[in-house]
Amino acid sequence: MWTFDSFPAAEMRRELGWAPDQNWLNRVMAGVARLPGCSASNVSAQGLVLTNHHCVVACIQNLSSTDANYLDAGFMSRTRDEERTCPGMYVQVLTAISDVTERIDAATREVSAEAFAPARNGEIARIEGECSTGTQRCEVVTLYQGGRYALYTYRRYDDVRLVFAPEGDMAHFGGDPDNFNFPRYCTDFAFLRLYENGAPAATPNHLSLRFTPLSAGEVTLVAGNPGATSRLRSVSELAFERDVNLPWRLVTLAEARGQFAAYAALGPDQARAASSALQSVENSFKALWGRRAALADPDGFAHVAEREQDLQQRVARNQASQREVGAAWEEIAAAQNVYQDMFYPYQYLEARAGDRSLLFAWARDIVRASAERSRPDGERLPRYTEARIASAAQFVAAERPVEASFEELILSFWLTKMREYLTADHPAVRRVLGNESPEALARRLAQSRLADPAYRRQLWEGGPAAVAASDDPMIVFVRGWDNDARALLRQYEERVEGPVARAQERIARARFRAFGESQYPDATFSPRLSYGRVAGWTEGGRAVPPFTRVSGLYQRATGHAPFALTQRWIDARARINGDTIFNLSTTHDVIGGNSGSPLLDREGRVVGAVFDGNIHSLGGDYFYDGELNRTVTVAATIMRTALAEVYGMDLLLAELEGR
Amino acid sequence: MWTFDSFPAAEMRRELGWAPDQNWLNRVMAGVARLPGCSASNVSAQGLVLTNHHCVVACIQNLSSTDANYLDAGFMSRTRDEERTCPGMYVQVLTAISDVTERIDAATREVSAEAFAPARNGEIARIEGECSTGTQRCEVVTLYQGGRYALYTYRRYDDVRLVFAPEGDMAHFGGDPDNFNFPRYCTDFAFLRLYENGAPAATPNHLSLRFTPLSAGEVTLVAGNPGATSRLRSVSELAFERDVNLPWRLVTLAEARGQFAAYAALGPDQARAASSALQSVENSFKALWGRRAALADPDGFAHVAEREQDLQQRVARNQASQREVGAAWEEIAAAQNVYQDMFYPYQYLEARAGDRSLLFAWARDIVRASAERSRPDGERLPRYTEARIASAAQFVAAERPVEASFEELILSFWLTKMREYLTADHPAVRRVLGNESPEALARRLAQSRLADPAYRRQLWEGGPAAVAASDDPMIVFVRGWDNDARALLRQYEERVEGPVARAQERIARARFRAFGESQYPDATFSPRLSYGRVAGWTEGGRAVPPFTRVSGLYQRATGHAPFALTQRWIDARARINGDTIFNLSTTHDVIGGNSGSPLLDREGRVVGAVFDGNIHSLGGDYFYDGELNRTVTVAATIMRTALAEVYGMDLLLAELEGR
Repeated sequence: MWTFDSFPAAEMRRELGWAPDQNWLNRVMAGVARLPGCSASNVSAQGLVLTNHHCVVACIQNLSSTDANYLDAGFMSRTRDEERTCPGMYVQVLTAISDVTERIDAATREVSAEAFAPARNGEIARIEGECSTGTQRCEVVTLYQGGRYALYTYRRYDDVRLVFAPEGDMAHFGGDPDNFNFPRYCTDFAFLRLYENGAPAATPNHLSLRFTPLSAGEVTLVAGNPGATSRLRSVSELAFERDVNLPWRLVTLAEARGQFAAYAALGPDQARAASSALQSVENSFKALWGRRAALADPDGFAHVAEREQDLQQRVARNQASQREVGAAWEEIAAAQNVYQDMFYPYQYLEARAGDRSLLFAWARDIVRASAERSRPDGERLPRYTEARIASAAQFVAAERPVEASFEELILSFWLTKMREYLTADHPAVRRVLGNESPEALARRLAQSRLADPAYRRQLWEGGPAAVAASDDPMIVFVRGWDNDARALLRQYEERVEGPVARAQERIARARFRAFGESQYPDATFSPRLSYGRVAGWTEGGRAVPPFTRVSGLYQRATGHAPFALTQRWIDARARINGDTIFNLSTTHDVIGGNSGSPLLDREGRVVGAVFDGNIHSLGGDYFYDGELNRTVTVAATIMRTALAEVYGMDLLLAELEGR
Repeated sequence: MWTFDSFPAAEMRRELGWAPDQNWLNRVMAGVARLPGCSASNVSAQGLVLTNHHCVVACIQNLSSTDANYLDAGFMSRTRDEERTCPGMYVQVLTAISDVTERIDAATREVSAEAFAPARNGEIARIEGECSTGTQRCEVVTLYQGGRYALYTYRRYDDVRLVFAPEGDMAHFGGDPDNFNFPRYCTDFAFLRLYENGAPAATPNHLSLRFTPLSAGEVTLVAGNPGATSRLRSVSELAFERDVNLPWRLVTLAEARGQFAAYAALGPDQARAASSALQSVENSFKALWGRRAALADPDGFAHVAEREQDLQQRVARNQASQREVGAAWEEIAAAQNVYQDMFYPYQYLEARAGDRSLLFAWARDIVRASAERSRPDGERLPRYTEARIASAAQFVAAERPVEASFEELILSFWLTKMREYLTADHPAVRRVLGNESPEALARRLAQSRLADPAYRRQLWEGGPAAVAASDDPMIVFVRGWDNDARALLRQYEERVEGPVARAQERIARARFRAFGESQYPDATFSPRLSYGRVAGWTEGGRAVPPFTRVSGLYQRATGHAPFALTQRWIDARARINGDTIFNLSTTHDVIGGNSGSPLLDREGRVVGAVFDGNIHSLGGDYFYDGELNRTVTVAATIMRTALAEVYGMDLLLAELEGR
């Protein structure tokens, strides 16, 4: 997970016999892209973008209706006219990286642990504000837990349209049972197109697809945005993760999954309304279950503890480090205890308040933005600074359908769990629920007029006066206890986030003294490169080969979901070469957020789209195990076959082939 | 949790200034009772039994229908004619205890670890078989992890009828949010009656209720059947519990809860069909969540580890112990690793196969009993030995309504989770599912004719030939892979249960050498006594008083479930003295299984029915914390008020008062 500006070419060459040059790196950096939560690549001169189906499932759901269910049928625009805007979707392409460590350090050097987070966030807002303009969006990235701060400049595209998506049953063939497993047979890819001024964007710096098969052992790279890893976090933070946060997240996801699945079973409209939420819950559950297992495994945790002890011994041997680090580890541990005491109120009222409810999220953005816009940029909540507020504005304005019955379910679930974990007698619960039951309150809130985008825009533009005057139930509700939630956020910043960040920075500097930049920083959902090769692994003494082929798909199909083929694939069977490579396994170190990343060959050509890891990759949050951890990719070969032989997408294929 | 035959009267007198004499103990032993999963007391000479509402909720559900929902309305028989048989319910009253340690030791002394469990189980079957006859049922109880074996003889009543139950909303007022919390306001009591030959059983050895209020500090005892504790288990077993079993159980319960709640919300019939399952899932979830938290708490686990280290040091200082114990702790740890490798197959195919499905449970009992009955008693599966098979027969014959749609939900959930945890490619999964999806298979199985009790009895009586000839889908299904399940059970007995039990016995003998019987054995769902007093506790610096009173109920009511009063209680408000004691907190050490236990005063009178513990009691599986762990009881005072002023149950009250 190397950054583009410090790629270890010499080391890669030593390991694999070849490494990209600067020209290659520049070309790839210009051709990769970032979507909300995912990665992608630009693969034609007319703005075509390749990503995963599961990265655009919310878009597909938003564009679907009772009459046209694109999740079931797939979405296939045969002409540009049929391409449809994904509500709220944006794409960012990295254009420059610069170092701003000095500025952040200067702004935070003299402040207390309590004031650290506001001071740092204020300086970040200033730096981002000075740089962002028009379609140029700038973001300060915290690398090495604060050991380095970098300013990433992106070109942002706000008009992104859906071009092609296969049927959901084929994109996630094998469903939850096969998720994170391999052999695998998923057509988990989709195409979007960037638009500018109502026309396809000109993207001369695009990458190109390669449709010839990969070989076992071939050297490849993955370019994309790994979301977050915790490899540099301290043992006390990981113990908190293992003992408090993950268990709570897992049981919450499990119960939500049970409710969402039952809701989806009520009928096709409900299935559509719940589809992306259900898919996300299932995927998160399995991923976090694997993370918990990695931390609960005594060997796994011992590995983490040894890493920390090793660093502590190095610090003890270096006077400068020792002076700087001081009691940093103890400070982090103390902050975990503080966090534990405020954990559930903070989660339920602030961090995960209204979890997954669009109506709640819109209301909070509207209420908070109206208050924040009148404050100095450096003192605002980070989401509403000048450099970032456009995202919130776009989110609030996006035309997304709202299914009131699903909103009611989500809101009721959140409020019920809040009461369960905080108890019915907690003052905050009394404040939030008033005299209502969670169910009755949720029913009332789900009727909010915020489902109407015109009303949301009116409140957004109307500012504090419009918000104060609104009698919409969700606005009234959010307004009623937003100060309680903000107080918790401030308390979290002052007593947990700030002290931990300040201590982490000191440890990070000591780590630099010990190791330099020979390790890459934890993932931060910013563009990174991972090198590796095409390879399977050995499981219980048996070799797992790196490729699956079309013939295997037809063997695995049972006719029952999630192993059911669509009619198109049944019909196409005779036309398809059974040896075509379908999915493949490679040795790259990736993590959630990398979904949709291009897998690249030595020529910088896109040979597939990363969509998953194997089961051993789930401990990747804490450590990378080169023997077993594998990345799973949908091969360009099967994309070509599908577009040509199954879906008849000839024009799209011609564009991809540069014809 | 002392046994009736080794009660530490001297120690109790030293601590509390008073202790019961042998006469008191004999009288109470004859007056307490055991229901499936619960405790109770016999409180009139005509067979009246007091227990918790939540202990009879399955009976209430079974007797309810679309037209008569006793869960909502309560069940109030004003004459004996209106009392109705609880399907499958039985009550046992302890009549004698004797020691059989020598017999078990003789049968197991020379056998290998692998053969240990079958040898022990065979001897237990022989002892129980020799003793059981007619209504006399005998059970060998393993005390001190095998340090002692005792034969408990019970009088069994198979005709048990429901007499009175309040409305569900009042019995579990506060619902899941208040569960394990205090202050509390639940009328969680119910009355059953024992019948013999179609008439109320004569029960001259009954206890009596006392309706005058208790005082703070008053000395009390709890007599009942604590289900299971793990205080003598080794650290490696508890680590397995913390890291493997509990996390899996919790996420499974959470997801089932989500599904059941959504199903119950579909309509009143579904709510009724799911009610006892949902209540049990919610209660189990909260209880196991507390247990997990106790083990995940570093101080809690350190306490457990220190206890083991202390014993290990004592063993190291005593040559006889050292020789006998040998590598017992290492053997237990090794068995945990074996268990981990077979954990999910064993759970999904054997231990929790068909979890909560009546149709599956009936089919398995029918299939297994038909095979087992032709084998020698000592070689049968424990459930089908001569001494125990009557329970299985009664379970299979009981007239319980089956809601096919809920069965389908349960079966589909089990099969889906099996595939998830074992993966779609596991041979056992292929064997169980065949070519069907979990959903389609569950739909087919839910149509089983086993819903008809006449058909079940026909198969039960028809034996192997009838079972082999049946084309019922559930019988065919269970028959198809029962050998796989039995192989897992055998493997578990030989490689986990036996080696652990054999090692535990050796440790137990060393523990006796060190401590004698100064500690009580782990709970085993056999009758025990716990002494203590009426007391609240201190929470976050504030004193929690031991009593709640009727006035508090009316203050807590919001009109919304689970804090809604029924009309009867609203109407009765003016008639009720607001100072009447409702629920109370005492210092007894109890655990699940104790529900329904009589709280007894020095005269041996029943002053309440235990129904819960406070939140600190949830770590009670591993250690008892006298400062914080509290038992929660519904007071006899509120029973009297409810029967007299709310429900007009004058005849029942007269019987209770011996009028």
